[in-house]
Amino acid sequence: VTELDFSLEKIEKGGFEHFMLKEIFEQPEVMRDVMRGRVRVEEGLVHLGGIHDYLDRLKQAKRIVICACGTSWHAGLIGEYLIEEFARIPVEVDYASEFRYRNPIVSSDDVVIVISQSGETADTLAALRLAREKGAMVMGICNVVGSTIARETLCGMYTHAGPEVGVASTKAFTAQVIVLFMLAIAMSKGRTISHEEIRLNLRELAEVPDKVARILEQNDAIKEMAVKLKDARNALYLGRGYNFPVALEGALKLKEISYIHAEGYPAAEMKHGPIALIDEDMPVIVIATRDNTYAKILSNIEEVRSRKGRVIAIASEGDREIERLTKDVIYIPQASAAVLPLLTVIPLQLLSYHVATLRGCNVDRPRNLAKSVTVE
Amino acid sequence: VTELDFSLEKIEKGGFEHFMLKEIFEQPEVMRDVMRGRVRVEEGLVHLGGIHDYLDRLKQAKRIVICACGTSWHAGLIGEYLIEEFARIPVEVDYASEFRYRNPIVSSDDVVIVISQSGETADTLAALRLAREKGAMVMGICNVVGSTIARETLCGMYTHAGPEVGVASTKAFTAQVIVLFMLAIAMSKGRTISHEEIRLNLRELAEVPDKVARILEQNDAIKEMAVKLKDARNALYLGRGYNFPVALEGALKLKEISYIHAEGYPAAEMKHGPIALIDEDMPVIVIATRDNTYAKILSNIEEVRSRKGRVIAIASEGDREIERLTKDVIYIPQASAAVLPLLTVIPLQLLSYHVATLRGCNVDRPRNLAKSVTVE
Repeated sequence: VTELDFSLEKIEKGGFEHFMLKEIFEQPEVMRDVMRGRVRVEEGLVHLGGIHDYLDRLKQAKRIVICACGTSWHAGLIGEYLIEEFARIPVEVDYASEFRYRNPIVSSDDVVIVISQSGETADTLAALRLAREKGAMVMGICNVVGSTIARETLCGMYTHAGPEVGVASTKAFTAQVIVLFMLAIAMSKGRTISHEEIRLNLRELAEVPDKVARILEQNDAIKEMAVKLKDARNALYLGRGYNFPVALEGALKLKEISYIHAEGYPAAEMKHGPIALIDEDMPVIVIATRDNTYAKILSNIEEVRSRKGRVIAIASEGDREIERLTKDVIYIPQASAAVLPLLTVIPLQLLSYHVATLRGCNVDRPRNLAKSVTVE
Repeated sequence: VTELDFSLEKIEKGGFEHFMLKEIFEQPEVMRDVMRGRVRVEEGLVHLGGIHDYLDRLKQAKRIVICACGTSWHAGLIGEYLIEEFARIPVEVDYASEFRYRNPIVSSDDVVIVISQSGETADTLAALRLAREKGAMVMGICNVVGSTIARETLCGMYTHAGPEVGVASTKAFTAQVIVLFMLAIAMSKGRTISHEEIRLNLRELAEVPDKVARILEQNDAIKEMAVKLKDARNALYLGRGYNFPVALEGALKLKEISYIHAEGYPAAEMKHGPIALIDEDMPVIVIATRDNTYAKILSNIEEVRSRKGRVIAIASEGDREIERLTKDVIYIPQASAAVLPLLTVIPLQLLSYHVATLRGCNVDRPRNLAKSVTVE
């Protein structure tokens, strides 16, 4: 029986060493699935069946509160930036566990969005129920069809990422971000940004799967970079703007499967404390794409370098300036700021995967962790 | 000349080894100064001269956005919980550096509160100016009289903590929290909580300085506890509710002056990743006071213990249950949940101070750090 299970598992992994690696590589395909039938670039619209009847109410929300845990909470932070930019409605992102144990300010004017891959996360479920009691309209974003969150929310959207087996979430995360992107665009419609801007943004989104595929082609180079990280005991991840939540997510991936104590920070906060940690033993992974904070992030890299910190940068293709600051650069295709998290997170997933395998860790079943936290 | 400087510095330190220790011990006195003439327990009111004329506008705010960096950002997080609980106005806390580089949603209906000890923090100042441009009413909380933030805000409150020399902020932080507490109460007046509740809360606040003095008496015991931490390379700090921002602040203190990579988390998030880091080499500092999440935090401690993590707990006086889970307990006097951060942060300040001195670090001038980050 054991033998059969094993070979079955091998087949399920589709030729990959681990489920996590398989799921990382599935992302271009998953991303296309998430968008299929929903994103219509030429028409400049998104069609979201699961929330279609509630879209007017969503657009009228005075305030949106996103509740989630772990990786889904990071997706929520990106959702905040997207919804605020496109739909111009204030968004608050709360840890579900914090939201539920205080007396949160939520009323029937508000929309609460709960995000959970499994749709069964205990704290997120409790937050959902509390928000409903307080009269808020509650919308769900989850991956598992028919899960408790899907059943108990008024409306919602599935991420359609397929079953995720690896404990460290990868494809479910990027699918959540795409869903939030589509939602932000749908909520903007006719109100806050022009039809042309919507088309431009949808085109950028539609180009993401191919760009992700191109990043995945660098797998071997990223594996070599992982060799430099594998003996680290600590690491810092820095980003700004849309890439700030990606820094948190990149650090979480490394924590989860390699047991290296990695921490993410908005880059500017480094000077308010974490910079004291930096010496030659502290690798710093900096997301330094060409966007409106590019000059600032270069100066952050210089600060790290001047304290002898080792820098690995995620940068935009064609950026020659960054090479003057560090030799360890992973390039991603150019893209508009709003879709960058979907690209910059990919090398960070691969980096953590390779560091963990180089350290001999059980990538798919990291110690102490469960795939879904269904007990409190 | 050098000799004279030295003895002058010695006098300025008032018999303490370092400015930081002096400033930690000044806190009962500073707290009384912050409240003096402002908190009137028997009348059940707070009088805040600096914002008196703007209080009606503050109460009518649709939304409050707090912008700050570093330790002030942690005070802002506590402010969020206080203002939402007492005044029932939604609060969003943003890193000043993130706020300024996106296109934040702020209008003339909103109040923006900027917090900075020096009143000169570059990113916070830029956030202030952006918020003003967008028509928001901007209020300042700072320590240095006549600073740029004090001059450029419409109204505000000084923390009156006296000059803070130690780079790692201590008394300025607790003074900021008290100011935010008074503000939350002032904004609640006549609207959201009863006169009796206000009196109860002000009485709790007025009792804080004496309780802090009692915690400071445990300095020697806390120093002994620091011996157990001094060789750590990493540490986790966990808290829930009002104590979640204190966990962040406790971790930042340790980072800043001892260069140990400490990270704070809302306790429930541990299961979503950080628990993978826990083994016998990972000390975990848990704030486990008797409040509405006490049972939950005990179960978090059990999870850490079952993975062989070493736990140092901050607990409420008279709690015998906690001793069954760990021998390393620092007790603080009992108090209502809303004032707990002012008490629980004190042992964490002392702990980081002693760990740093045991490691031979320059406590008052930690490497790489400036007292005020006045350049971007």
